[in-house]
Amino acid sequence: MKHGLKKRSSKSGLPPGTPVHIGQQRTDTVTMTVCTYSGKDFHEQDTSHVDECLALAKKPGIRWVAVHGIHQIEILQRLASSFGLHPLVLEDIANTEQRPKVEDYGEYLFVVLKGLHLKEETSEITVEQVSLVLGQDFVLSFQEGSGKILQAVRERLRNGKGRVRTLGSDYLAYTLTDAVVDHYFAVLEHLGEHIERLEEELVTNPGAEALQALHRLKRDMIVLRKAVWPLREVIGHFERGDSPLIKPSTLIYFRDVYDHTIQVIETTETFRDMLAGMLDIYLTTLSNRLNETMKVLTVIATIFIPLTLIASIYGMNFRHMPELEWPWGYPAVLVVMGSLAAGMLWLFRRKNWM
Amino acid sequence: MKHGLKKRSSKSGLPPGTPVHIGQQRTDTVTMTVCTYSGKDFHEQDTSHVDECLALAKKPGIRWVAVHGIHQIEILQRLASSFGLHPLVLEDIANTEQRPKVEDYGEYLFVVLKGLHLKEETSEITVEQVSLVLGQDFVLSFQEGSGKILQAVRERLRNGKGRVRTLGSDYLAYTLTDAVVDHYFAVLEHLGEHIERLEEELVTNPGAEALQALHRLKRDMIVLRKAVWPLREVIGHFERGDSPLIKPSTLIYFRDVYDHTIQVIETTETFRDMLAGMLDIYLTTLSNRLNETMKVLTVIATIFIPLTLIASIYGMNFRHMPELEWPWGYPAVLVVMGSLAAGMLWLFRRKNWM
Amino acid sequence: MKHGLKKRSSKSGLPPGTPVHIGQQRTDTVTMTVCTYSGKDFHEQDTSHVDECLALAKKPGIRWVAVHGIHQIEILQRLASSFGLHPLVLEDIANTEQRPKVEDYGEYLFVVLKGLHLKEETSEITVEQVSLVLGQDFVLSFQEGSGKILQAVRERLRNGKGRVRTLGSDYLAYTLTDAVVDHYFAVLEHLGEHIERLEEELVTNPGAEALQALHRLKRDMIVLRKAVWPLREVIGHFERGDSPLIKPSTLIYFRDVYDHTIQVIETTETFRDMLAGMLDIYLTTLSNRLNETMKVLTVIATIFIPLTLIASIYGMNFRHMPELEWPWGYPAVLVVMGSLAAGMLWLFRRKNWM
Amino acid sequence: MKHGLKKRSSKSGLPPGTPVHIGQQRTDTVTMTVCTYSGKDFHEQDTSHVDECLALAKKPGIRWVAVHGIHQIEILQRLASSFGLHPLVLEDIANTEQRPKVEDYGEYLFVVLKGLHLKEETSEITVEQVSLVLGQDFVLSFQEGSGKILQAVRERLRNGKGRVRTLGSDYLAYTLTDAVVDHYFAVLEHLGEHIERLEEELVTNPGAEALQALHRLKRDMIVLRKAVWPLREVIGHFERGDSPLIKPSTLIYFRDVYDHTIQVIETTETFRDMLAGMLDIYLTTLSNRLNETMKVLTVIATIFIPLTLIASIYGMNFRHMPELEWPWGYPAVLVVMGSLAAGMLWLFRRKNWM
Amino acid sequence: MKHGLKKRSSKSGLPPGTPVHIGQQRTDTVTMTVCTYSGKDFHEQDTSHVDECLALAKKPGIRWVAVHGIHQIEILQRLASSFGLHPLVLEDIANTEQRPKVEDYGEYLFVVLKGLHLKEETSEITVEQVSLVLGQDFVLSFQEGSGKILQAVRERLRNGKGRVRTLGSDYLAYTLTDAVVDHYFAVLEHLGEHIERLEEELVTNPGAEALQALHRLKRDMIVLRKAVWPLREVIGHFERGDSPLIKPSTLIYFRDVYDHTIQVIETTETFRDMLAGMLDIYLTTLSNRLNETMKVLTVIATIFIPLTLIASIYGMNFRHMPELEWPWGYPAVLVVMGSLAAGMLWLFRRKNWM
Repeated sequence: MKHGLKKRSSKSGLPPGTPVHIGQQRTDTVTMTVCTYSGKDFHEQDTSHVDECLALAKKPGIRWVAVHGIHQIEILQRLASSFGLHPLVLEDIANTEQRPKVEDYGEYLFVVLKGLHLKEETSEITVEQVSLVLGQDFVLSFQEGSGKILQAVRERLRNGKGRVRTLGSDYLAYTLTDAVVDHYFAVLEHLGEHIERLEEELVTNPGAEALQALHRLKRDMIVLRKAVWPLREVIGHFERGDSPLIKPSTLIYFRDVYDHTIQVIETTETFRDMLAGMLDIYLTTLSNRLNETMKVLTVIATIFIPLTLIASIYGMNFRHMPELEWPWGYPAVLVVMGSLAAGMLWLFRRKNWM
Repeated sequence: MKHGLKKRSSKSGLPPGTPVHIGQQRTDTVTMTVCTYSGKDFHEQDTSHVDECLALAKKPGIRWVAVHGIHQIEILQRLASSFGLHPLVLEDIANTEQRPKVEDYGEYLFVVLKGLHLKEETSEITVEQVSLVLGQDFVLSFQEGSGKILQAVRERLRNGKGRVRTLGSDYLAYTLTDAVVDHYFAVLEHLGEHIERLEEELVTNPGAEALQALHRLKRDMIVLRKAVWPLREVIGHFERGDSPLIKPSTLIYFRDVYDHTIQVIETTETFRDMLAGMLDIYLTTLSNRLNETMKVLTVIATIFIPLTLIASIYGMNFRHMPELEWPWGYPAVLVVMGSLAAGMLWLFRRKNWM
Repeated sequence: MKHGLKKRSSKSGLPPGTPVHIGQQRTDTVTMTVCTYSGKDFHEQDTSHVDECLALAKKPGIRWVAVHGIHQIEILQRLASSFGLHPLVLEDIANTEQRPKVEDYGEYLFVVLKGLHLKEETSEITVEQVSLVLGQDFVLSFQEGSGKILQAVRERLRNGKGRVRTLGSDYLAYTLTDAVVDHYFAVLEHLGEHIERLEEELVTNPGAEALQALHRLKRDMIVLRKAVWPLREVIGHFERGDSPLIKPSTLIYFRDVYDHTIQVIETTETFRDMLAGMLDIYLTTLSNRLNETMKVLTVIATIFIPLTLIASIYGMNFRHMPELEWPWGYPAVLVVMGSLAAGMLWLFRRKNWM
Repeated sequence: MKHGLKKRSSKSGLPPGTPVHIGQQRTDTVTMTVCTYSGKDFHEQDTSHVDECLALAKKPGIRWVAVHGIHQIEILQRLASSFGLHPLVLEDIANTEQRPKVEDYGEYLFVVLKGLHLKEETSEITVEQVSLVLGQDFVLSFQEGSGKILQAVRERLRNGKGRVRTLGSDYLAYTLTDAVVDHYFAVLEHLGEHIERLEEELVTNPGAEALQALHRLKRDMIVLRKAVWPLREVIGHFERGDSPLIKPSTLIYFRDVYDHTIQVIETTETFRDMLAGMLDIYLTTLSNRLNETMKVLTVIATIFIPLTLIASIYGMNFRHMPELEWPWGYPAVLVVMGSLAAGMLWLFRRKNWM
Repeated sequence: MKHGLKKRSSKSGLPPGTPVHIGQQRTDTVTMTVCTYSGKDFHEQDTSHVDECLALAKKPGIRWVAVHGIHQIEILQRLASSFGLHPLVLEDIANTEQRPKVEDYGEYLFVVLKGLHLKEETSEITVEQVSLVLGQDFVLSFQEGSGKILQAVRERLRNGKGRVRTLGSDYLAYTLTDAVVDHYFAVLEHLGEHIERLEEELVTNPGAEALQALHRLKRDMIVLRKAVWPLREVIGHFERGDSPLIKPSTLIYFRDVYDHTIQVIETTETFRDMLAGMLDIYLTTLSNRLNETMKVLTVIATIFIPLTLIASIYGMNFRHMPELEWPWGYPAVLVVMGSLAAGMLWLFRRKNWM
């Protein structure tokens, strides 16, 4: 996860409303999936031709056009003009650096969400921009990649499970939003386990790698937070029921997503607190170890340096050193040394240094 | 206390309103206790059959159905359809990862609270979700475990003490909420004593175990806070009297619980502040000790290393070293060494190093 | 000052509105002082019999019943029933763990304040709960101890100084509140001097006692803050003039107390900031000292260890060591050692290490 | 700058509205300057007799009475009764511990501001309370000292520069407020330069004096902040135009002062941030230096201690030590020692330790 | 980037509305560019004579007068009187220390923005004040320097690209604001790369220069924040559509700039968080290294000091030391020394110290 300013500057100087793709290309070709349904009827088709897509989207009933890949500006422009989208909406769809937001254009609502993907093996989190346009009887969804996040909704439509087919486009927008928020829980669970493993490692084996991992997690939290916090406002907008596009009966469902969003935000904050606490623990553990090391050094030095002095004294070459002549001089010195060392050790024990 | 994301992800992809039990199973079988009362009349019965329970709950008067155990979805579904609960309510009751909240469904209020249990011997705190549904003349309560928290209310109903039997379902909801909040004080008292013992230990014997205990307490505070903070909003909702289900005469009692909640929150914050201060003290104590250790080492090294040099000099084997021949050479060197050491000691004393 | 959760849990399970004394008993017997006045007339009497008190409180004019000691529940109950107080008010008066608050019961206002006492010799701060009930023409005050805080108001009533006798019960409530807030300044002044003395000590003689004192002060601030912050809201309630019991002409006086409260809060925050700054200073001073100690050790070791090596080399017993035979060998080695030491010293001076 | 609680406690127990001078006396005698003007006419006179002052203030036109010195309560009382001020206003004027505030008494506005003085040579900042009373056609200003802060306004009135003479008392109040806020910039500039000098010193010569200076600056910021923050609210009150005493045409000028106040507050916050950053830098620099010191010690010890061991080994007096007899033993040992030292040095270089 | 208080104090004492240039002079002569357009017509001319400029600005259609250089007060005064600007507006244009703000003067809006310039080679960020005056059919822009920031807008007008020529002065004001905000992204991108490079350096080669760079970046963030935060309020003012000068159709564009502003603010906050995290990492890395150094020292000392003692003991000159006579004494001592060293090494390995 980077700080999220890729090549935004390449756009500066262009007139507003000029769509420019900003972000990484994640699919080779842009594909579109058009689902149309009304109660019992359900029709689904994949295509990579925008004309075919527009023809399909003319059918009666609720229509959901899912676009996978946003790097072909001309496709976006055809769709936008067909559905009557404002140039600024088009610009925002193509620019993956939007923050989550909702904008009311009267005839349609434009919503930007951030989907999270987790690459299990490397614990890497990638952010995918998911843009939704909710009209009276259609929903457009734009994703950067292949659309894994919204796949479950398509399944449910296909199988006719739940009430999704019998309700309007606002309920579809809710299920899509819910699918995005639901994916957060998987990422948070993974992060939670990661944090717990790291916590254990910090206590048993605090080293530079653990510190690096802690730092990476802290940065992940910064980026995660940036993706999640504005969601509160976005979904709160739905829940307050400001737009006539959202029917009152759907409000209760948005309240449910709102609850989930709050839960995601709180968990993120809890993780931040936990990581802050872990850094404190790490630093304190380091201080503790330094103290232990210094005590060992001090004990060794304090015991052996005086003994070495005694040995050195009797190594002096003065002609007149009466002790050297004593028959018991040598053992006496050894005894003195031994008792000195023992005394020191006793002292350190008493001072609780060993 | 874990971070509270157990197997939430197992649910992702399911249509909304699908009840799935998320959490630990804490009772073997689900039991229900039905109390019906109206002034003098009082009837109480335990059952583990949902049909019997529903039959009992048809009696006139105020009815309180207490469900212990939420892992049998079919029982919850039967109750929900009998009392006309929304599928989302059912889903939230079964999912123990809800945050405390209140939701107004018009005909009934749905309240999620978090009860705290303290295992005295291990100082371990466990969180139990307590969901309440308050209708015109009934209260449903759902607990994960055996219902110890709400036991006192049942006693009071049984004995007819206080005014609880003569008042409506809103007063019953109040007493249940009050019982949950009252339990917090026991937990906080225990934590308070724990913090004070730890504080003393940190001063007298700061070590790795004290640090671990401090860390555990800090994490407990994070989880406790997450359980307690949203309560303010929840009970504030009651106290403002937004719902016609709460009679004006009951509002004053909810104001009382609101006060208790604020007190719980403030105590939690005070504990957090105290723990933060204790970590500061711990780190400063460590620094102090390191300083002391280093002073000891420095004093030893500064006194003995020069003396050893002198001894080594007179241990050299030069042929022409006049001092070696002097009859008083040896005692003179000893005197020089002694006075050097004494001078050093005097210097360190004056510099306040010993 | 403790964290303030004494035996609250002993109450859990009792029905709401059951008065239980929670807190320390601070007087042997409960005494009551009844003052009645109306312009010129003034009557004051002490009693420890609740019947006599109630008889006195029946006189016309403004009546102030000051109760000293709240551990005899039956006295409180008699007073409460005589003045028509709600059971929850009675419960709160007896429980000294209330946070400062104001509650409007229509016919009377119930106010909880926290008085601060300072034991000069030990710098110990004790908190006393002061509850006021303000009715149309009476004020009840409940204190845990002997009532020193409100003594000055009684003197003023007795002497007829100021306008207090000519104005209503709301003005009396104001003077009582003012008396409580005024006492804070004495405590804050004392703390301010304490902080300044400690600051000086931290610079001149930073040790474990100073750290302990700093820690104690920080904890005092935590508790003080808890007592003072809610006051803002309480007195703000008066100042906004929401209750008809407060006459418009008295509002201006409550605005004055509000100002004082803000000043107390700001001073508390300033003290907190100062204490945080002092801990920083302390830690930095410790680091500085450690640096100094390590420099001394390094200088000593760096100068003497190489000299000792030289001496040891010429102490070796090789048969063929030509230098040993030179007549000027010994003085030459001494000169080399001296110049080496001088060179090192010069180097350390230049590196600004000494 | 002290914490600002001088002898407030001396007042406790007195009835409200009793004016008591709290603060330092900064002038010997109280002097008053009365300016009266209306378009072309302008009259200015200094006096130290309150009767003369009151006579002068009876003239027609806009009248500005500037009082220098607030320690003579009787003068304040004469003025207050002449201009119809409330006793609480009088009390607040005499008490220099007020926080900046504005109070609307209907017929007049009472404003408390804090003027800052800078003693250039010692960088000492002193706070002077400036109280303003704005009536329909008069302004009273009360200062503790000789009135340097408002001097420029008097000059402008005298010279008739700007529009001040042609506008009402509200515009005069604005110019006085502006003069007080303008003085802040000089103080902030000085502090800014001080901070920059200190920052340089912390990098080049971090020592105890720099730390003390940093600490003093931090405390200055605490007190400065206390003086400046409430100003936002005070001047915001004027700018919102709540009082009929402020004419709409003057509002735009108060908006300008409001802007300046925000700028002062932001600069104060920026300084606080910078000082916090500097403490971080200081601590990190200390850690860096300790690391360097320890590396030097470690390098010295690691190189010389093994060499000393070798020398000591060949200083042993065993009868059978074949090396001692070798003709090249001595040079061989020297070569071994030299290469050992060189190897160590090479190792340390490679590990980037030197 | 300095703290931004240059010579503000030179102004204190002057009457309000006196324009004084505060800031650095960045151009030699003041030049003006006048663009007039209405649909197809477009006329652009540079001039350095204010009379010519005013004559050009009398043409019909939308007029944009861009002033480059604000140090010649008389030119500003001529323009101000010609376009009917308030003296306070003039004063604010000339003073480059304004914070971003918008002021509604009824007939025109006065906007202060802060443009950021980046000197690529030194990574130095300079702040340029950009003031806009938006009238019914004119826009005045004032810049300190040569106007690079608004150059792109002029190009677009010239080429007739986009809708800018067909829309009113409010759309022009929007494009100018957008151009200023667009420039922020370039600066943020550069800072982002700088931060990432620094982060890598802190891990691989943490030293004093990295610390200095970190400190500089932190200070840059403080100043950047000061420039960017108030923008939210400024552009929010436009977006709310409070002024009749902004047509409803333009509001949607201001909402777009508002989004960009929020994105800039969030990125700034993210950078601040990242820099705070990096300082933590740096300090922890230092502690780690100190620990490593101390371990090396301790291992060396603990291994060699006891061996030196043994060698010194057998260097003593006692007459009766039986070991010295043993034929295998010398090798035995060497073996003892070797095994002692090996044992120590084994112990340190086991304790994970090496």
